[in-house]
Amino acid sequence: MNEPLSEAPSIAPLSDSELALFNRWWHAANYLSVGQIYLMANPLLREPLQLDHTKPRLLGHWGTTPGLNFLWLHLNRVIRARDTSVLFIAGPGHGAPGIVASTYLEGTYSEYFPEVSQDLEGLGRLMKQFSFPGGIPSHAAATTPGSIHEGGELGYSLSHAYGAAFDNPDLVVACVIGDGEAETGPLATSWHSNKFVDPATDGAVLPILHLNGYKIANPTVLARIAPRELAALLRGYGYDPIFVEGHDPDPMHQKMAAAMDLAFDRIAAIQKAAREDGKTERPAWPMIVLRSPKGWTGPKEVDGLRTEGYWRSHQVPFSDMTHPGHLQALETWLRSYRPEDLFDESGRLFPEIAALAPVGTKRMSANPHANGGQLKRPLRLPDIADYAVAVTSPGHETGESTRVMGAWLRDVMKLNLESRNFRVLAPDENNSNRLNAVLEVTNRAWNAETLDYDDHLARDGHVMEILSEHTCQGWLEGYLLTGRHGFLSCYEAFIHIVDSMVNQHAKWLKTAAEVPWRRSIASLNYLLTSHVWRQDHNGFSHQDPGFIDHVINKKAEFVRVYLPPDANTLLWTTAHCLQSWDRINVIVAGKQPEPQWLGLDDAIRHCEAGIGIWEWASNDKGGEPDVVMACAGDVPTLETLAAVKLLREHAPDLKVRVVNVVDLMTLDSPSQHPHGLDDASFDALFTLDRPVIFAFHGYPQLIHKLIYRRANARNFHVHGFREEGSTTTPFDMVVRNHLDRFHLVSNVIDRVPGLATRAAYAKQAIRDKLVDHARYIAEHGRDMPEIEAWRWS
Amino acid sequence: MNEPLSEAPSIAPLSDSELALFNRWWHAANYLSVGQIYLMANPLLREPLQLDHTKPRLLGHWGTTPGLNFLWLHLNRVIRARDTSVLFIAGPGHGAPGIVASTYLEGTYSEYFPEVSQDLEGLGRLMKQFSFPGGIPSHAAATTPGSIHEGGELGYSLSHAYGAAFDNPDLVVACVIGDGEAETGPLATSWHSNKFVDPATDGAVLPILHLNGYKIANPTVLARIAPRELAALLRGYGYDPIFVEGHDPDPMHQKMAAAMDLAFDRIAAIQKAAREDGKTERPAWPMIVLRSPKGWTGPKEVDGLRTEGYWRSHQVPFSDMTHPGHLQALETWLRSYRPEDLFDESGRLFPEIAALAPVGTKRMSANPHANGGQLKRPLRLPDIADYAVAVTSPGHETGESTRVMGAWLRDVMKLNLESRNFRVLAPDENNSNRLNAVLEVTNRAWNAETLDYDDHLARDGHVMEILSEHTCQGWLEGYLLTGRHGFLSCYEAFIHIVDSMVNQHAKWLKTAAEVPWRRSIASLNYLLTSHVWRQDHNGFSHQDPGFIDHVINKKAEFVRVYLPPDANTLLWTTAHCLQSWDRINVIVAGKQPEPQWLGLDDAIRHCEAGIGIWEWASNDKGGEPDVVMACAGDVPTLETLAAVKLLREHAPDLKVRVVNVVDLMTLDSPSQHPHGLDDASFDALFTLDRPVIFAFHGYPQLIHKLIYRRANARNFHVHGFREEGSTTTPFDMVVRNHLDRFHLVSNVIDRVPGLATRAAYAKQAIRDKLVDHARYIAEHGRDMPEIEAWRWS
Ligand SMILES: Cc1ncc(C[n+]2csc(CCOP(=O)(O)OP(=O)(O)O)c2C)c(N)n1
Ligand SMILES: Cc1ncc(C[n+]2csc(CCOP(=O)(O)OP(=O)(O)O)c2C)c(N)n1
Ligand SMILES: [Mg+2]
Ligand SMILES: [Mg+2]
Repeated sequence: MNEPLSEAPSIAPLSDSELALFNRWWHAANYLSVGQIYLMANPLLREPLQLDHTKPRLLGHWGTTPGLNFLWLHLNRVIRARDTSVLFIAGPGHGAPGIVASTYLEGTYSEYFPEVSQDLEGLGRLMKQFSFPGGIPSHAAATTPGSIHEGGELGYSLSHAYGAAFDNPDLVVACVIGDGEAETGPLATSWHSNKFVDPATDGAVLPILHLNGYKIANPTVLARIAPRELAALLRGYGYDPIFVEGHDPDPMHQKMAAAMDLAFDRIAAIQKAAREDGKTERPAWPMIVLRSPKGWTGPKEVDGLRTEGYWRSHQVPFSDMTHPGHLQALETWLRSYRPEDLFDESGRLFPEIAALAPVGTKRMSANPHANGGQLKRPLRLPDIADYAVAVTSPGHETGESTRVMGAWLRDVMKLNLESRNFRVLAPDENNSNRLNAVLEVTNRAWNAETLDYDDHLARDGHVMEILSEHTCQGWLEGYLLTGRHGFLSCYEAFIHIVDSMVNQHAKWLKTAAEVPWRRSIASLNYLLTSHVWRQDHNGFSHQDPGFIDHVINKKAEFVRVYLPPDANTLLWTTAHCLQSWDRINVIVAGKQPEPQWLGLDDAIRHCEAGIGIWEWASNDKGGEPDVVMACAGDVPTLETLAAVKLLREHAPDLKVRVVNVVDLMTLDSPSQHPHGLDDASFDALFTLDRPVIFAFHGYPQLIHKLIYRRANARNFHVHGFREEGSTTTPFDMVVRNHLDRFHLVSNVIDRVPGLATRAAYAKQAIRDKLVDHARYIAEHGRDMPEIEAWRWS
Repeated sequence: MNEPLSEAPSIAPLSDSELALFNRWWHAANYLSVGQIYLMANPLLREPLQLDHTKPRLLGHWGTTPGLNFLWLHLNRVIRARDTSVLFIAGPGHGAPGIVASTYLEGTYSEYFPEVSQDLEGLGRLMKQFSFPGGIPSHAAATTPGSIHEGGELGYSLSHAYGAAFDNPDLVVACVIGDGEAETGPLATSWHSNKFVDPATDGAVLPILHLNGYKIANPTVLARIAPRELAALLRGYGYDPIFVEGHDPDPMHQKMAAAMDLAFDRIAAIQKAAREDGKTERPAWPMIVLRSPKGWTGPKEVDGLRTEGYWRSHQVPFSDMTHPGHLQALETWLRSYRPEDLFDESGRLFPEIAALAPVGTKRMSANPHANGGQLKRPLRLPDIADYAVAVTSPGHETGESTRVMGAWLRDVMKLNLESRNFRVLAPDENNSNRLNAVLEVTNRAWNAETLDYDDHLARDGHVMEILSEHTCQGWLEGYLLTGRHGFLSCYEAFIHIVDSMVNQHAKWLKTAAEVPWRRSIASLNYLLTSHVWRQDHNGFSHQDPGFIDHVINKKAEFVRVYLPPDANTLLWTTAHCLQSWDRINVIVAGKQPEPQWLGLDDAIRHCEAGIGIWEWASNDKGGEPDVVMACAGDVPTLETLAAVKLLREHAPDLKVRVVNVVDLMTLDSPSQHPHGLDDASFDALFTLDRPVIFAFHGYPQLIHKLIYRRANARNFHVHGFREEGSTTTPFDMVVRNHLDRFHLVSNVIDRVPGLATRAAYAKQAIRDKLVDHARYIAEHGRDMPEIEAWRWS
């Protein structure tokens, strides 16, 4: 590690007059930031500051803001000089006062929100609305022009940035990473995204580590390791860092201007080498480390305590404006930026300062990629009919549903390869999840070392695999938010790893839907497979169906859950999801060989409705059923049908209705979810008073939660995952959780009035079967032949 | 980066005879591993291998196993040579065949499971039971002696290792990290744990990066970057890596022996420098990089395809034993280890090989820290009475609940400082969550650079703060699993980041409870604060109460959820949780000033029951209520009481009963949760037929899910979080979600039969209040004075 630190070259790219202008822009942005946090009147301090000009509740984050403003300004210089397209991502999204200020200075803000005009009145609105009821939130949310990243939950900036850069060869994504954010796991691994970017066909990401030394109330790790250690870490991550350090504005402007030039020169050189000279070696991409004080230019001390360059400037450096000296301190602080030199009489930014911004869509605040919906094109989708499994009679054929769907997915990839707007992602599970067909038409993205016996690795591959659910999710979100499409498959249990990321995306979708100028983006599509019931190689840790519970807490408009029971229903569902917008679609389906129930026509009818009676499995037509056997999920469907067959033998007179649910949200009440069945239809299916034995893929209480308002709610008896698992046989998994055919039948016998006495022998026979089962598997290590060979017909 | 790679010194510490023995141990471990995956009979191949000696379902993971076996063997050498205490953590817990084999070779396995004896019969059982119904699971689960880490969900090995090492100065935790696992976010950031370890008072972690090049079906990033880049990365993480590379066993044994010596010498030197010479600079801790083939010593090719040193050896290198050649290949593979040289006639490991293991508790399989419950000591807890808030009458006083509790927590820390068995953790939120009092008696753990103006940083601090929820969680789990205690506070919304880690811990607890020799460990205690209703500085991204939904899906025996409405109830709850074992305790409580309802005596009575009528707020005593106003959570309690007061004004005759819930699981039915109230008690509280207006902290459906079996379920009307939020006033948050007093009253009017017509004027007055509210906050940015100044009495 004797290599010298790569500092910004000691040249001074800015002339004195430019420097003066740069300071004025920066002052203007900082002034507006402080104003947003503190003021609700007197925006340009044309009167002496009074208590009632300040907000009663002082909310927001100052510490990160001057750094963000500084970077925005310097990126603007590069954009103008090179006519480049740059997307700005603020990891510390709590620096929204700065982002909003910058977009306002660029004019974009007023274009999107005309009432926040570029005059005194607009300035007043701009300041008052921030973190104010009915105004705008404290983070870089969907309301913020130019943003695709809220930055509320820290850790995802860099994976979002890479997601945005993929397949956008002309875009540079400048991604500011807080040094606190850099401590999060998702961020720490996302540096490695540079092994998945193709300098020829993808855009570039310029990470900017914002080393302001502090987080909320602690120093940061990266600021407190030796500079050489930090440099080694970043080089180890595959970057070539440029360090900009200091606090004196003038030299810092010069250093940053030089650093930006160097970084963009290097990016250009890397891209040229790959695009024109055919260079294939993975480059060390440039990045910038900005080491500057937290709360830069803010109050040095507050009430005698260190504030600038310290964690105390993280939020609002001082509040309680009635405290002696605070009002005065605020006025001094604000006036230090000399608002009279920044805004003219009418309250408009002086034109010579405004001229520092690029124009039109070159403004980062107006970059089209930041409102990706406006760039999106629908996918070209092959006809699912060409991939459908032929089903001669229900349950006769066997198929691996995800493999069938995988063939279709391959051709989705093929049809859209040229548009370069579709990616398939998985945390090292694409093949395990049996979606390997897609590798027939593309490769796995890989720009690290390759060996001759490698399997489908290529720099421009459109299958993305890294063993990080967080990174896959972050990439996909960034890709979708910039107007493209994707599909993520994951082991069901481990999708919980991204629970909180899904929360944040759902919140983004909800907020964006309320912003008139935000355009719809493609849905976030999940295939959860290797699911709880068939985690054969693994054990209890791999058995968890709770992601459904998690997502359905999100705003109903944006969430869909599908449990296709076989290949054709999975085909339909996947095709449906890939055509939808603004949704989070969760598909749960098995990858193991399993009986195929519905031919394509039946599958389409069934899936369009989302729920329905399976007539061929029912015997109550024309009358009322004695029991409704409901099922959702592939394994529960299998067990339900097996139970029905047992009932046929043991209680041939019993009228059984089989209802299968593909679209889980049909069960919810229509006031809660747009897919919720109206009560009349629901009652028609499930009756008003008959027992409903429901075999469910997930945790049983979920069904109760969905149907508690329904007339027949009390008669629902749900079998599902009871958190019992291990490495065992597939049938033993259902037995342990009482989801198996025998427990189902036994429950039918218990619940149908009058049946218990009649069916006492059947019940005993069934009990015996469970004993036989336990003995058999303990000896043979596989399920009883009658279970393995079971067929519906 | 011109520094030479630190390779293991080229000395050969092993004599020829040792080398021969080392190979035999390694062969024995590998033999038993392959045997566990494949065989159910003929364990020592004393007959020619037949199809029916093999398992019908071949489940498990071979690829990582030989490497784990190799490392175990070499760690044993160091342990014997130095009489050190070493805990083994296998990041790739799927390598359980190896771990189990090693613990069996050490004799521990047979001590814990006498039926798996050290003879032919025991060998047969050992092999058959693996991944077999009724046997043992495929991972290093709680059933595995010496394990505190299942290794099913990848990413937590290193944070677990550090958690185990804290305050265990005589322990070395050897942590094997898969190169795939290293790609996960949680693992990637956990390297930085070395900035939080004190060489003087903590133990050491020896990370061993298992660079076998592959994960399931892809190469790994770290194996495909230049060696210098990898070295830079690891040095950047603050380690001093020792590289052991190759595939030829003899030289590899020599290199690994030398590397282990070097690593343990360095650890000893670091500890001596800190403990005896008073050195305070953060050391670069040693670590080992083992670069060896995946599936080492396994089949080179299977069916003509590369297998050893490739991802194809990840799971079962070949299955379908009826496939031509497979049975033969298996026999050849097994015999390559020469079982006859390993086990004597009776099936016992030859004594000269067995002698390579340490004895007694020095065996890693018998390390007492791996069954931490047996080392645990209860905490010394101060009397909560000394910290209680005086409540002259309900709601009269105001207090910040978490701050009150923080004073108590400080003294918990103080009383147990000497025992060094209690840590308080937070992702940079300890002060924000108002637990800063604890810093009066200890510091924040910090072993990176410090500056003179730093705030309570010290190498041996017992408050742990890193901006990584994953790392905090992992440290705490490791600390608890090795017999100590802890308390983690977190913003409510962001605890979802560790959803999946909590799943895994809950699964561990459940499994461990079924293992007779596992002893109880201290509970995992959470304080979730800065909760959904009072995220004042932040917005929608910080508003999510769904963690409760997540945890209650776990096995009921292990999960508790508490919603103390004020400081004294929070005190009781916290003290209760810190005395419990084997639980996941979730406490949700606000940090903002709020009314205090119960004096300590009342608080204790209320909390012991977990739920109860607040008589002083009710007016139905002696009769039946017209309506039950139920509440759970601090803000809902406040709004409920405000609603009750409004009802007093507007409908003085209405008989209102107020029920407050602290222990959420009392609502669940007793068949589901041990805390569930029996139906008689539940019905007594909530009546059989009166409307229940329930103000709940979280998502409303959760209450419906808990109470769906109760007699009065249909009359529950739950108000809670509807996923509406932003940066706004506290009262506006409840209004947006209809949890405010006005919506509650309005719902009472709608639901109490006959009230609607009588209370039409009241309803209109209330509607008007909501209009006033909206106008007021939009103008003033704070809540109406009547809201801010509201008092119960
Ligand atoms: C995942 C997550 N954990 C905790 C927080 C609470 N939080 C908000 S800001 C902050 C500190 C951020 O520090 P840094 O990234 O360095 O940003 P900056 O210094 O630029 O403000 C924390 C811990 C969060 N927003 N997200
Ligand atoms: C978080 C998580 N995601 C995905 C998986 C599925 N999985 C099991 S093993 C494995 C590959 C592990 O590779 P590595 O860590 O290198 O282990 P080794 O090569 O030693 O087997 C994967 C992706 C998992 N167990 N955990
Ligand atoms: Mg910072
Ligand atoms: Mg590996």
